[in-house]
Amino acid sequence: MHVAILTGGGDCPGLNAVIRAVTLALLQQGDRVTGIERGFLGLIERRARPLDHAAVAGILAEGGTILGTHNKADPFHYFGAAGADVSAQVMAYAGELGLDALVAIGGDGTMSIAHRIGQLGLPVVGVPKTIDNDIAHNDRSFGFDSAVAVVAEALDRLATTARSHGRVMIAETMGRYAGWIALEGGLAGGADVILLPEQPFSVDAVAARCRANEQGGGCTLICIAEGAAAAGGSLTVQQTIADSPDPIRLGGVGHWLQQQLQPRVASEVRTTLLGHVQRGGTPTPFDRVLATRFGVAAAQLVKEGRFGRMVALQGSECTSVPIADVAGRNRLVPPDHELWRVARAVGVSMGEA
Amino acid sequence: MHVAILTGGGDCPGLNAVIRAVTLALLQQGDRVTGIERGFLGLIERRARPLDHAAVAGILAEGGTILGTHNKADPFHYFGAAGADVSAQVMAYAGELGLDALVAIGGDGTMSIAHRIGQLGLPVVGVPKTIDNDIAHNDRSFGFDSAVAVVAEALDRLATTARSHGRVMIAETMGRYAGWIALEGGLAGGADVILLPEQPFSVDAVAARCRANEQGGGCTLICIAEGAAAAGGSLTVQQTIADSPDPIRLGGVGHWLQQQLQPRVASEVRTTLLGHVQRGGTPTPFDRVLATRFGVAAAQLVKEGRFGRMVALQGSECTSVPIADVAGRNRLVPPDHELWRVARAVGVSMGEA
Amino acid sequence: MHVAILTGGGDCPGLNAVIRAVTLALLQQGDRVTGIERGFLGLIERRARPLDHAAVAGILAEGGTILGTHNKADPFHYFGAAGADVSAQVMAYAGELGLDALVAIGGDGTMSIAHRIGQLGLPVVGVPKTIDNDIAHNDRSFGFDSAVAVVAEALDRLATTARSHGRVMIAETMGRYAGWIALEGGLAGGADVILLPEQPFSVDAVAARCRANEQGGGCTLICIAEGAAAAGGSLTVQQTIADSPDPIRLGGVGHWLQQQLQPRVASEVRTTLLGHVQRGGTPTPFDRVLATRFGVAAAQLVKEGRFGRMVALQGSECTSVPIADVAGRNRLVPPDHELWRVARAVGVSMGEA
Amino acid sequence: MHVAILTGGGDCPGLNAVIRAVTLALLQQGDRVTGIERGFLGLIERRARPLDHAAVAGILAEGGTILGTHNKADPFHYFGAAGADVSAQVMAYAGELGLDALVAIGGDGTMSIAHRIGQLGLPVVGVPKTIDNDIAHNDRSFGFDSAVAVVAEALDRLATTARSHGRVMIAETMGRYAGWIALEGGLAGGADVILLPEQPFSVDAVAARCRANEQGGGCTLICIAEGAAAAGGSLTVQQTIADSPDPIRLGGVGHWLQQQLQPRVASEVRTTLLGHVQRGGTPTPFDRVLATRFGVAAAQLVKEGRFGRMVALQGSECTSVPIADVAGRNRLVPPDHELWRVARAVGVSMGEA
Repeated sequence: MHVAILTGGGDCPGLNAVIRAVTLALLQQGDRVTGIERGFLGLIERRARPLDHAAVAGILAEGGTILGTHNKADPFHYFGAAGADVSAQVMAYAGELGLDALVAIGGDGTMSIAHRIGQLGLPVVGVPKTIDNDIAHNDRSFGFDSAVAVVAEALDRLATTARSHGRVMIAETMGRYAGWIALEGGLAGGADVILLPEQPFSVDAVAARCRANEQGGGCTLICIAEGAAAAGGSLTVQQTIADSPDPIRLGGVGHWLQQQLQPRVASEVRTTLLGHVQRGGTPTPFDRVLATRFGVAAAQLVKEGRFGRMVALQGSECTSVPIADVAGRNRLVPPDHELWRVARAVGVSMGEA
Repeated sequence: MHVAILTGGGDCPGLNAVIRAVTLALLQQGDRVTGIERGFLGLIERRARPLDHAAVAGILAEGGTILGTHNKADPFHYFGAAGADVSAQVMAYAGELGLDALVAIGGDGTMSIAHRIGQLGLPVVGVPKTIDNDIAHNDRSFGFDSAVAVVAEALDRLATTARSHGRVMIAETMGRYAGWIALEGGLAGGADVILLPEQPFSVDAVAARCRANEQGGGCTLICIAEGAAAAGGSLTVQQTIADSPDPIRLGGVGHWLQQQLQPRVASEVRTTLLGHVQRGGTPTPFDRVLATRFGVAAAQLVKEGRFGRMVALQGSECTSVPIADVAGRNRLVPPDHELWRVARAVGVSMGEA
Repeated sequence: MHVAILTGGGDCPGLNAVIRAVTLALLQQGDRVTGIERGFLGLIERRARPLDHAAVAGILAEGGTILGTHNKADPFHYFGAAGADVSAQVMAYAGELGLDALVAIGGDGTMSIAHRIGQLGLPVVGVPKTIDNDIAHNDRSFGFDSAVAVVAEALDRLATTARSHGRVMIAETMGRYAGWIALEGGLAGGADVILLPEQPFSVDAVAARCRANEQGGGCTLICIAEGAAAAGGSLTVQQTIADSPDPIRLGGVGHWLQQQLQPRVASEVRTTLLGHVQRGGTPTPFDRVLATRFGVAAAQLVKEGRFGRMVALQGSECTSVPIADVAGRNRLVPPDHELWRVARAVGVSMGEA
Repeated sequence: MHVAILTGGGDCPGLNAVIRAVTLALLQQGDRVTGIERGFLGLIERRARPLDHAAVAGILAEGGTILGTHNKADPFHYFGAAGADVSAQVMAYAGELGLDALVAIGGDGTMSIAHRIGQLGLPVVGVPKTIDNDIAHNDRSFGFDSAVAVVAEALDRLATTARSHGRVMIAETMGRYAGWIALEGGLAGGADVILLPEQPFSVDAVAARCRANEQGGGCTLICIAEGAAAAGGSLTVQQTIADSPDPIRLGGVGHWLQQQLQPRVASEVRTTLLGHVQRGGTPTPFDRVLATRFGVAAAQLVKEGRFGRMVALQGSECTSVPIADVAGRNRLVPPDHELWRVARAVGVSMGEA
């Protein structure tokens, strides 16, 4: 078989581990593997290169993607052609390459495009990629553990400053819609307050917690997801977020919260926007193993001819689901999730009034 | 309620996170918490101290256990009394303290003792602690991810030397009976060969792989569990291992393998025994979250009066099992486990002839 | 002797290592040591505690300061008394405590106050603390290596994203007046462009470099100090910086540069403001050794009665200089410093037109 | 000019940073650069490749050497030709390549060979490479900081186990003749006892310290260089070390010390041999900067025609010394070095009776 691989959407630690695993698993079975450059843009612009053992040697621990990626390249609505549908061109290129299948590694958007490509006749297999851990039907995705580790390490650092100065320190994490990173990162970093998009927060409640800590002689560590919003009055911030071209905005919700809190507490309040460092760099060992499992599972789906499916982790089992079931859905932290209870049990305020 | 906590057996990253979570969860419900020092030795020697908020502040990310631990203290066979049964004395002390329950955090041995203590009338709840990830009925334990991370980072380091010199580098990991650490650590570190206790290895096969790599211009990275053994002839090593008082032996199976390989390959062979650094130090964020979940779950079992049970992770769910079902069993890597297939699919030799 | 220690100004990795070293070195000689809490605030508010072996055990690798610190507490101009001079009160407290000497660990501001305290009759010894590495007569200060390490690691992470997406990534570091952190961090992180306060930069030159990289198929990594400013037109930014109450501002020079660059380059431009994580967390081993040397040297100055002096590193030698020579001066990166040449030699643009 | 680069001897973090800096600095001046593979072996076996911008892109943070290295390849005594002198052959190859100069990066042995090659007419410049920090006339070498960081991190990990179990933990570091790694690593890791080759130690004194710590309720952390030896009776160990083919021996001086200590102390004694992980992996930011400075300085020596010289750091200045002055000398920790005093001042036992 001749199988192509591409990576779409934002980069994520572990992408290279998936590329390596898919490639090695297929090469071992005598297949031919081609890497498409910069996501679907490479299919449009006809940029591909062979992937052999040498090409994937030593990339397991490397962050990013050796194939490059692109946030916006959609063959059905190509920005380079005034939004025109260039999918026929993509299919022609796939035909010229002689592709038997495409492994598309990406998020929600990539899966939607992959699904449509599949319907045009190029058999596809999907691998979920989401730093936010919010792809439907997939319990845990590679890259997420790495992002949580960055957040936890940052909180460890901020905690020493908070303690030394008796401050309120706010760390704003990724997570526009789903709060997984802030939740696990905050728990791992010992945050006093964790604020998620799934639960509108009360500024009064957060301020009350800061003051209680002050009275106990302590500092306060707040971990807030970029998509978190105050109950009621914070529409302005939410608006700003929705309108912003870039999730790493100037003066996000963390800074907004700082402005709200400062007049209500005695200690100084400071904010750190963790930003892009959350998605770059070498994957944690956990993510390397998970990404390798996903890559091998994708190769297996290809070999078994089970197309139109996306690899997924359910519990501790690596399985697959129809790509069609994934597109357009977000996996938020459900209200009854164990970690809400765990956080509250160890005294974390989740911002409820 | 008045609840005691103890940590038994070897230390493990995440113990403090469990202690903290149990303590905070119980304090929040108005309970009283006492820490027993140095495992069951503290119950024998009557050493305990109160655990309040201050006592557990800032310990989430600390390695080891603030309560101390002991490898060999068994009230039913006390080394300090020529092997006598001093359990009555322990129960008397528990009575004097006015304990309503005991949370015992430990491995197989700790669970066996906890089970017997429970039969004597002190209600117990267990929390599994195993750096080797080999406690029955528990899919993943805190500390394991941290150990895997140490192994993977060591392999990353050894790989640069292997490549620069064109060497065969052997890294010997923990894992006397179960190969989980070598398996996940080896996968995460990109090992070419992974040798586990569950699968006797062929020195010829390993040497063949090294020579094949040499011919391809490459080096070879071998990750071997301390309990791995060659098929057939290596009884001497196995004997040495079984007789050794300390799992971190001089000249373990890694060095034995080096001696066997050196005459059969062209490149230099070097061995590193990773040793105690695998079990010390700050837990990974993953382990901090898992340990916190386990601690909260243990507190909940106590509050629900579900005694005689051990917290366990099954799939992604935190549940519990009878302690009696755990004692005396080991969770080895099963022959049909997904990771065998994954490792082979990406070209790892598992040492089969 | 009875010696007091205090830490003033912003926190910095290695403060605890200094406190530990001063304390251990004095205790070993039979002296008595007292820790003043929260910098000079503790002398004003009469908050002190004894420092013995137990108090400094295990703090070597801890970030921050166990004594706490305060940015603004000045006995000669006390914010808590409408700017009044409360130094007499401080001297009275020192008398009551029976202090023979004070070791003041801090930056420029702390040294100025310490100098005046010394003139009032309390013998003082200074230890330079500056994350920015900009204290006069001191070649290298503890905490600086740790900050550089944070910057370099962040650049490593951002580089993977930059490469994967073909982006221009800007990282804004600390350094209002002196560019040491951006310079060494940028060199260590492989930045293509490094912009320092000491050298007004040309936006055109930076844009030209980005475009050259684009044409070579590459991405661009820019490391900019918060105090850097464009030659000529950027007065607004400089003004904003000077007026800002907090060095970690919203929309600093990094974001300003992003806005200037975006219209002039083809690829996407993104900015990360590294913020407070640069000053928190465990010190690097280098900083732990340096801080220990400084602490021992301070204790020695006290024992030798060489008061009014500040410990300083010159070349590789730990020596001392009069505190009076330090106050009110900044050690900028001199125009003829070797690292300018080194950076240019490896192709880094320093922003010159 | 046409300049060749080679790396000789054991690998060391920062080699790639030197290769990159030499290459970039020379390319920028219009020179041609060639990499010789596997040290002097490449000159013998005629293996070279061009070094351009692409070849050195992204290698700054990579451990090891992209050129490969060899421990034993000496053109004046070639193991591949029964010890024959093949230097004429090497000079012929250099002539064919049209080399104007050779930059040799390596230790004592590499400098000796480079010196002789220079005398045969190929102009050479040396760059000191020593993980042990023991090259004469050079205050600090790249790779050393990285090794110290590995040791300090290992001690941090071992300390948690030592505390949890109340144990004596011994960590054996690199350093056959010079104790720099054990000294700085031990200081940074908070060791209670540091034993160097430069100072024969008394087992009685070490045991006394362990017992004193036991009585104070504490554990003991010992950091011992592989070349350390007991005063008087330990000749056997020293002999073993001298005869061993590999510095990472089975049962080195750490294990010997364990055997001596165990009968004399109450707590368990455990040893970890840190081994090859000390020399592999990504260089610390400090080492990346230092290696870059060394590389640029080497390129400058070449351009200035100052041959026969080795780059050297003296104080904080990057200068150079005649290669002839370096060969055959070792830079041990001098008896009056500041760090002896610093260590003793903070209560570290250096093993004196």
